This record gives sequence, structure tokens and C-alpha cells, in this order.
Amino acid sequence: MTHSNTRLEDLAKMAGVSISTVSRALNDHPLISLKTKKRIWALARENNYPFRSSMPAAPLGSEGSIVVVTPHMQGRPLPLSHPFFLELLASIGEAARARDCDFTVSHTAPRDFDDLVAVTTTSRAKGVIFLGQSMLHDEFNRLADSNGNFVVWGAHLPGQKYRSVGSDNLLGGRRATLHLLRLGRRRIAFLGSSDPEAMQRHQGYLEALEASDVAFDVALDIRVDFGFESAESATTKLLTRGQDIDGIVATSDLIALGAIRALRKGGRMVPKDVSVVGYDDMLLARLSTPALTTIQQDTAEAGRRLVSQIMDSDSEQPPEYLPTNLIVRESCGA
Amino acid sequence: MTHSNTRLEDLAKMAGVSISTVSRALNDHPLISLKTKKRIWALARENNYPFRSSMPAAPLGSEGSIVVVTPHMQGRPLPLSHPFFLELLASIGEAARARDCDFTVSHTAPRDFDDLVAVTTTSRAKGVIFLGQSMLHDEFNRLADSNGNFVVWGAHLPGQKYRSVGSDNLLGGRRATLHLLRLGRRRIAFLGSSDPEAMQRHQGYLEALEASDVAFDVALDIRVDFGFESAESATTKLLTRGQDIDGIVATSDLIALGAIRALRKGGRMVPKDVSVVGYDDMLLARLSTPALTTIQQDTAEAGRRLVSQIMDSDSEQPPEYLPTNLIVRESCGA
Repeated sequence: MTHSNTRLEDLAKMAGVSISTVSRALNDHPLISLKTKKRIWALARENNYPFRSSMPAAPLGSEGSIVVVTPHMQGRPLPLSHPFFLELLASIGEAARARDCDFTVSHTAPRDFDDLVAVTTTSRAKGVIFLGQSMLHDEFNRLADSNGNFVVWGAHLPGQKYRSVGSDNLLGGRRATLHLLRLGRRRIAFLGSSDPEAMQRHQGYLEALEASDVAFDVALDIRVDFGFESAESATTKLLTRGQDIDGIVATSDLIALGAIRALRKGGRMVPKDVSVVGYDDMLLARLSTPALTTIQQDTAEAGRRLVSQIMDSDSEQPPEYLPTNLIVRESCGA
Repeated sequence: MTHSNTRLEDLAKMAGVSISTVSRALNDHPLISLKTKKRIWALARENNYPFRSSMPAAPLGSEGSIVVVTPHMQGRPLPLSHPFFLELLASIGEAARARDCDFTVSHTAPRDFDDLVAVTTTSRAKGVIFLGQSMLHDEFNRLADSNGNFVVWGAHLPGQKYRSVGSDNLLGGRRATLHLLRLGRRRIAFLGSSDPEAMQRHQGYLEALEASDVAFDVALDIRVDFGFESAESATTKLLTRGQDIDGIVATSDLIALGAIRALRKGGRMVPKDVSVVGYDDMLLARLSTPALTTIQQDTAEAGRRLVSQIMDSDSEQPPEYLPTNLIVRESCGA
């Protein structure tokens, strides 16, 4: 931009506001409405009044920004492309948008306490949402002592001092398993990852089996990672080992869909031969064939609660549980 | 934190670095490595040396942050939950992560030139990625004159002055249609939104019909919005109007899946009675049944190119096209 002879006074006259308002607007002062700012920026532009260089390092969101961080999971950064976390990210975005707030996805995948401190102290953000606990429970407790404004998506764990929003995993795992037992299934495999949430769902699986006097068979208890392929190959192994199964409890819809693909390739029909129940209720679960019976995690509600935990953090909030509704579709049969 | 008698000199001794290094680290100076910073922050914490309050408003990403903005589409903000944009967002995130850069999703959905100026001038970010053009082509051209660092995901349009990354929509639409024509389909409906990208795909559809001497039937040319439901109801209308169709070209996988659901409900088999080809090649396309034949948009590559356009923007780059590979799966038959 080339300079001009336009002065603040002139802009103030044109805009019909005080000089201090123009000055504040050009400096993106929080007390000036975005509407007014934009009107004055437009005038400044039209009159070649230089203001961009004088802009402060202001975050875009008029209400600031929330940082979203995904910790390392099972030793590596969680892929941002994981469908459940993507849907959660979208719902956080919608909830932030509804409050004129931006959200920043950090490139850092915290591994230890210093990582956690780094992301909570070096940002001008309102606060930090951690998507997942990984194995950082003790570190999050230490972080809570230092009064950082953060909330964790994940399990509520014993001795927890920090705020969290998550599914009632124990109940969810129990419901999924009881549904299969009620359908007469007895050889029920468990396909799950090894993070705290999945382990609580596993506990619910064990409790449901015990309550129904169905013996737990360690050969049907399978650890997989977060991916579709991992679940597919684990299920194929299960079948080639000649394991006789009639049900699968999966700790995510993606794992369930991987298992179903392997069952099909192995010549088993879903749900006729094997009933499969997922977890999450992602868009995928509704659109796949057979449509997935699954334990719903209401990501829209999750996003609202996570954002509210950051924006309304003055009030002490207890750990929040989302309801664990069983959504019955086609993958289990009737 | 309670104050202590620890001085900068003491921290410098403990850390085995100079006092200025300690001071710079505590002020999050860009020239100090994150590793060193974290070591010194840890020392400061252990010795109750107050530093957090003195922290500047530093962005988290050591290489800064890229702002991602979704313009209004067809009069309303694009839902962040749209699967294709979510996958694109994830790939931008992975590409940014690979360059130690954060990305901020703005809550603003630009409608006019001042909106565009607001998001490009009030942010300290490296630059702005606009996900979609909406109807802002002329405004983007004006913005390019003001030398803002931005890139647009979308179509390459006549007279375009700004940088863009997108699919070769004309070729993609033509390929999808020619594939159906080669399979002997003649009553081919077009289901698409009304944004510039979809309209270029529509042009490819028209060219393919003409090249094959198949008459264009306006009754088969349907405008839908971005959602699954919109495509489902539009297809149901098409069937109840008694339109005889044997093929569908959809401008997104989600639209294709909505159409397939309506065809099923209407008693038409896919692909036996009607062949359907999508666009995008999302995870959904691979996992749905029948798996979708679709025009691939390589979101991973798209993310890398969009981020590179911002981070390496010193070099003038021409508009970039992604290859438009036809991925043949089950939804069209053989």
C-alpha cells in the first residue's frame, strides 16, 4: 500500500465515530465490535491509510481460541484422520463457532509432563482440550495442580483431579456385551485398543459375561490399534486359528467394520453367523451395510461440553459422562 | 505459584546456559529450541521461579500457525462435519504437523470482501487456506491484489489471480460420465451442488454426453446441497416422477451414497439396474456396500500442497490441479 495524506481525524469524520474509536478499531481493540472494525478497515483501505502493519498479534476469534491437542497413543501420534476424532473435532469446531471462538489444532503430540506444560503455558488460548488420555493420567493430575485451564476427552479414572468429558465406558461395554448375550450369543470376542477408555469397556465386557455365567475365553480377547486394517487382520487370524465365535464387541465402529470385512472374506455372514456391535456411532456406522449396531457417543454434545468446560471454566465442574445409548441396527440381527 | 529467591543467574547455572538464554527461553524466544525451553521451564517450575505470567502471546506452533476458513456455501456456513472437508482438514493438519506448524480453524464464515480482509489481516498466522470458493471469486481476485498470503481450495476459474489447489473438475466430471457410457448406460442423471467446482463437473458431464451422442435430458439434471439427505430425497423424487434412469453421476461420495439409499428403497438394484459413480474417494466410499466407484481427490496430497502454498509462498505458484483418477469399485458393475 502507498501512504496517503489521510489522517485518523479524517477517517473518524468519514466513519462518524471518535478518533479513539478509529484508533482502537485499527488496532483491533476487543471493545470495538467486528462490524465497526470492518467498516473502519474498509475506509482505511479505500483511503490508503496504512493500518495492517500496525496490527497487533491478535487471535482471529473475537472470543479467542481454544487449543486442541491429541496426545501420543500407543507410542505414536494419533492420526488426525481417525474418523471418531475427526467427528469430535468437527463438533468442537461447531461449538466454538457458536461462541465466536476459533480452535487451534496443535502439531505437538504430548508424551510427558513437560509437553503438557509446554502446550498449556506457551499459548495465549482460552484453554486446552486434550483429545484422549493416553497414559498421561498422573501427568494430567500434576497439571491440574498448576491451575492450567484444560479438559480431557476420555475416561474418568480413580483419583482423578482434572476435568474430563467422556463416555461411561464401563456401562457402554457392559451394554454392548449384554445385547449380544440376550441374542443368545455365547462365543463373544472382544476387539479393543489398550487405552484407558477401551480398557474400561473391556471391564464392562468381563462383568457382562460373568453376570450371565458365560466363561471368559482369553483366546477371544484381542488387542488391536485404532485402525480398520488392524481389526481386519486380527479377526482373520482369529478365524484361521479356527476359533468358533458368534459375536464381537468392538471398542470403535472402525474396528467393528474391519472385523465385518474379515468375517465376510472368511465366509461368515453378519449378523446370521456372527453378531457385531461397535462403539461411537459415527456417520460410517449409519451408512455401512449392514448398518452397525453400536454404542452411541454423542459427539455434538461432547463438543458443546468440552468447549463449555474451557469457556465457562470459572465454575468447578465434575467429570462429565455422556449417555451410552445402544443404537440397534442390522449388524447383530434380532 | 509462590515466589522464591531463585534468580535468573541460578537457573542459568543449573541449566548450564547463559543468562540471556534463560531469559529468552522464559520468554519463549523463537531462536531457542523447544527442547531447551522445556528444560528451562522445568527448572523454573521446580524452583518456583515465576515465568508463566511473563509469557508473551506466542502461538503454539514453533513455525507459527495457518488459518483455515470455510466460506458460506449456498447461503449458509458449510458444516464442519462434512466428511470431505473433514478429511481435507485432517490432511492439512498432518501436513502442518510435519512442518511444526499449527492450524487454526476460524469461526468466521466469510460472505463478502470485508470478511475476507478481516480474516487475512487480523491474524498473526503465516497465511490463510480457504476451503472452497463459494461465490467469492471476484473478492478473492481483489484480495490477491492486496498481497495477502492465502490459497483457495477449489476450482481454477477464468481470470483467476489467486493461488488455488483443486481437482481438475471438468476432466473428473467427464471421466465419471464416460465410464457410465462405456458400460452402456444412456439415461444418466447428474446430482450436484451449485458451487463452482460442481458446475465444472457438470460441464464435463455435458461434454461426455455430447461426445457420445447421448441427448441431455434436463429432467435428469438435479441440484442438491451438500448433505446425504438432500441427495436421498432428490433421488426419491426422481423415481416417483417415474423417470427411467440407469446411471447417476454424483458430485460427491456423500451424494452418491444418499442416491444409492433412495434407489434401494425404490426397489432398484445397484449396480444391476442403476450404476452410480461418486466424487472424492472418502473413507466412506471404500467401506460402504456396494463400495463406490468414484473420482479420487487425493486429500493427503491436497493437504501437502495447500500447506506448501502458504509456507513456501515466496515463490509464485500457478494454480495446482490434483489428478482425477477413476477408482473402479462395485457401484457401477462391470
